[in-house]
Amino acid sequence: MTTSPPARLRVVVWNENVHERSRPEVARIYPEGLHRCIAAALTEAGLADVSTATLDEPEHGLAAERLDATDVLVWWGHAAHDRVNDAVVDRVQRRVLEGMGFVALHSAHESKPFRRLLGTPCTLRWREDGAAERVWVVQPGHPLAEGVGDGFWIDQEEMYGEPFAIPEPDELVFISWFAGGEVFRSGCCWRRGGGRIVYFRPGHETFATYRQPEVRRVVANAVRYAAPRTTPLVDRGSEWVAPAVEARRERG
Amino acid sequence: MTTSPPARLRVVVWNENVHERSRPEVARIYPEGLHRCIAAALTEAGLADVSTATLDEPEHGLAAERLDATDVLVWWGHAAHDRVNDAVVDRVQRRVLEGMGFVALHSAHESKPFRRLLGTPCTLRWREDGAAERVWVVQPGHPLAEGVGDGFWIDQEEMYGEPFAIPEPDELVFISWFAGGEVFRSGCCWRRGGGRIVYFRPGHETFATYRQPEVRRVVANAVRYAAPRTTPLVDRGSEWVAPAVEARRERG
Amino acid sequence: MTTSPPARLRVVVWNENVHERSRPEVARIYPEGLHRCIAAALTEAGLADVSTATLDEPEHGLAAERLDATDVLVWWGHAAHDRVNDAVVDRVQRRVLEGMGFVALHSAHESKPFRRLLGTPCTLRWREDGAAERVWVVQPGHPLAEGVGDGFWIDQEEMYGEPFAIPEPDELVFISWFAGGEVFRSGCCWRRGGGRIVYFRPGHETFATYRQPEVRRVVANAVRYAAPRTTPLVDRGSEWVAPAVEARRERG
Amino acid sequence: MTTSPPARLRVVVWNENVHERSRPEVARIYPEGLHRCIAAALTEAGLADVSTATLDEPEHGLAAERLDATDVLVWWGHAAHDRVNDAVVDRVQRRVLEGMGFVALHSAHESKPFRRLLGTPCTLRWREDGAAERVWVVQPGHPLAEGVGDGFWIDQEEMYGEPFAIPEPDELVFISWFAGGEVFRSGCCWRRGGGRIVYFRPGHETFATYRQPEVRRVVANAVRYAAPRTTPLVDRGSEWVAPAVEARRERG
Repeated sequence: MTTSPPARLRVVVWNENVHERSRPEVARIYPEGLHRCIAAALTEAGLADVSTATLDEPEHGLAAERLDATDVLVWWGHAAHDRVNDAVVDRVQRRVLEGMGFVALHSAHESKPFRRLLGTPCTLRWREDGAAERVWVVQPGHPLAEGVGDGFWIDQEEMYGEPFAIPEPDELVFISWFAGGEVFRSGCCWRRGGGRIVYFRPGHETFATYRQPEVRRVVANAVRYAAPRTTPLVDRGSEWVAPAVEARRERG
Repeated sequence: MTTSPPARLRVVVWNENVHERSRPEVARIYPEGLHRCIAAALTEAGLADVSTATLDEPEHGLAAERLDATDVLVWWGHAAHDRVNDAVVDRVQRRVLEGMGFVALHSAHESKPFRRLLGTPCTLRWREDGAAERVWVVQPGHPLAEGVGDGFWIDQEEMYGEPFAIPEPDELVFISWFAGGEVFRSGCCWRRGGGRIVYFRPGHETFATYRQPEVRRVVANAVRYAAPRTTPLVDRGSEWVAPAVEARRERG
Repeated sequence: MTTSPPARLRVVVWNENVHERSRPEVARIYPEGLHRCIAAALTEAGLADVSTATLDEPEHGLAAERLDATDVLVWWGHAAHDRVNDAVVDRVQRRVLEGMGFVALHSAHESKPFRRLLGTPCTLRWREDGAAERVWVVQPGHPLAEGVGDGFWIDQEEMYGEPFAIPEPDELVFISWFAGGEVFRSGCCWRRGGGRIVYFRPGHETFATYRQPEVRRVVANAVRYAAPRTTPLVDRGSEWVAPAVEARRERG
Repeated sequence: MTTSPPARLRVVVWNENVHERSRPEVARIYPEGLHRCIAAALTEAGLADVSTATLDEPEHGLAAERLDATDVLVWWGHAAHDRVNDAVVDRVQRRVLEGMGFVALHSAHESKPFRRLLGTPCTLRWREDGAAERVWVVQPGHPLAEGVGDGFWIDQEEMYGEPFAIPEPDELVFISWFAGGEVFRSGCCWRRGGGRIVYFRPGHETFATYRQPEVRRVVANAVRYAAPRTTPLVDRGSEWVAPAVEARRERG
């Protein structure tokens, strides 16, 4: 009996892996691909079972058997949201409701699974100006913020500005300040069914954001936080139940 | 300047209108159709602009121009969820995010627009036994509960039981007690974008539930509560913004 | 039957009225006192029954009969939180739970009634540097933000920074950006019992913030939003109930 | 780096210990005292560092040094709420905000620390009729509900009925059905500062409720769930910060 995450979380880092192969300036920063950079951050943080999947693999690397054996799915997408197959989106949604964690990074705010799970457009304002971002912790003591004090700077990032068209988060953990005058809810948590959803803002492909220790730490925190909390749920659909529970009790 | 609902709310009551035409026992109770019975309740409650729409009409009676001129949409569906066109569902979702209220009644818990907006399966347990239901007010002072004291009985209803697979409501207003031993979150409110979503449980087609004064009162309360609170939003999609707001300010 | 605010909201603006009389630089900006400046903003916005109360009046101007006839109480305090009598705090708390709105402005974050109602210290970081503040709307379509577009600048204000030690707001409407690099949850709403609580950040006594049209608008929005939604509740204490509701029903 | 609860949670079970000594029918059921019965349940569940404290001890057994070394405080009180010293209540509140978990059982709904932390009266309806209670799980997959399936019966309990005057829970996990026709939100969770607060309804002193395996399991679940999630917070009070974070950054 425990409510701790399983000792050996099975984590899959999904990446569309498009920019890295089409834009030299991205390939220069992430020659191994964003997915492998992020996966390495998780491994360094002590997570022992981390693998990757990408858009071009069969079923985008997310076949049913693999997803069924995944505890937390990390998602990075941007240019190819529309190329993600709806059957895979259905599957991700189902798995989150059963208890799988889902960590959406940066431009995954408009990814199909994220929008599907939240029911809103998840749109925002943006400017790719490479100015400074300050990530502030607004809920000290939240596991997502462990190890990053009261916040941290990212020297160069894309700006994301409010309004961010999401349902009110169950827990708001980070708010970003941008040098250009904008603010953004950068660390948001929701529960849906048995699963936890985390959105963490930083990580534009043209900056080395995922090489920064604080960012790596928060992504690892997010994975641990989003770990299934109990035995997985099974959605049995709506269900006819008879006789009444009270009648069953009386019969013993 | 006001935050009150518009003087003349434009309300559309949508009904799949299937049972009433195929099952004599339903036709006997609701010969005019559930939609007209519900619409009459709203008119009696002082709402002056109430109309109806049904599945069989072109575009299910929910063409873009009509929805754009609707402040609150009430939804009753059961047997024909799958026959609702996805383009209409898209449109309902968009309008709710812009500010239109959406009131889902009874078996609309599994309707496409409700599930789309919430992102979860919205499944439950059920038993059509016609036993008694007690609807309890858990948030006295909430507009949804106005005029019904601490709750009311419904002599015969279908049982709906927990777990109800919804996101945690922003406001939980009613909980039902069933004679068979079950409980259910019967009055739930969520905000999504500019719009408000209400779920109200009672209203099985084989019982005269929508003829009961307290139920009629709550449906009217729900419509008023779900009324748009301000001028409608427009989703402009994600948007590139430059120069930075700080730069614009400095230039005057 | 209506869920709209009463036609003629009875509003009391409370101010400790200390700085205005002890510090010439404050008296110069608010010679009439902050309470009268704020009350005038409300009257201009169309609220017809606005009066003021201050610390030095008997019972701080908040005798039971007066509070019982108040729909929304606006609170500004800073230097004299400790001088507010606990019996008056009890009364304000009781009235909020019954349905009275409570709008806490700026340094009222540490006022006794605000802390009592929220149960947390409501502490924050601050710097009285008179630099620029940008107030951003994060929930477009929320009544609190009506009429201020996507936000507004305040040229000179005191900085308030996160973490702000509050319970997660039920609705977060504004986030502020400060020129010094900080952010703050500047517009927060909670429900407690029948009442609504709003916190709105701007309004340091050494700046002419409450003369700015957008700020005046938001304070008026907050008062209308916090208006009682239904007939007032009465807290009867915990209550013994017998016979059971089910038994009462069976008897008729 | 971990977000798991500390390996060896330090748990204190507090009990006013009044009924057990003054009413023979309670002494017969809990001869060892409710605190020792509950503590034994926790020990059986694998918690290794469980101790007890009672009203009559100096400082109610909750001296500052002891509370500072407590991870989760379980509270049972009923007849003697008023005899709890306010200085101890202050201390419990401070510790919860720093991260200590607080589990309020049954009639602790009106205890001073619970009301202080929530800011509402926490009143309810009640009837000590010893009829059956069915506890339903409404959030399957929540750690509080681990191991109890979709709910369980308690053959004899005191009835608690809605409305329960609490702030909307952050997570609602259990709803109770009572044979007399009432319902109640029986498992509620809130976050305040760094700490988690759990309310769990069952446990009237005249019934052997805390001897029932499912109830013992849920209390143990609650303690584990309420465990501090990260290093403790320190409330430094509101704090003057200069120079601005942006200026500090520029200077390196």
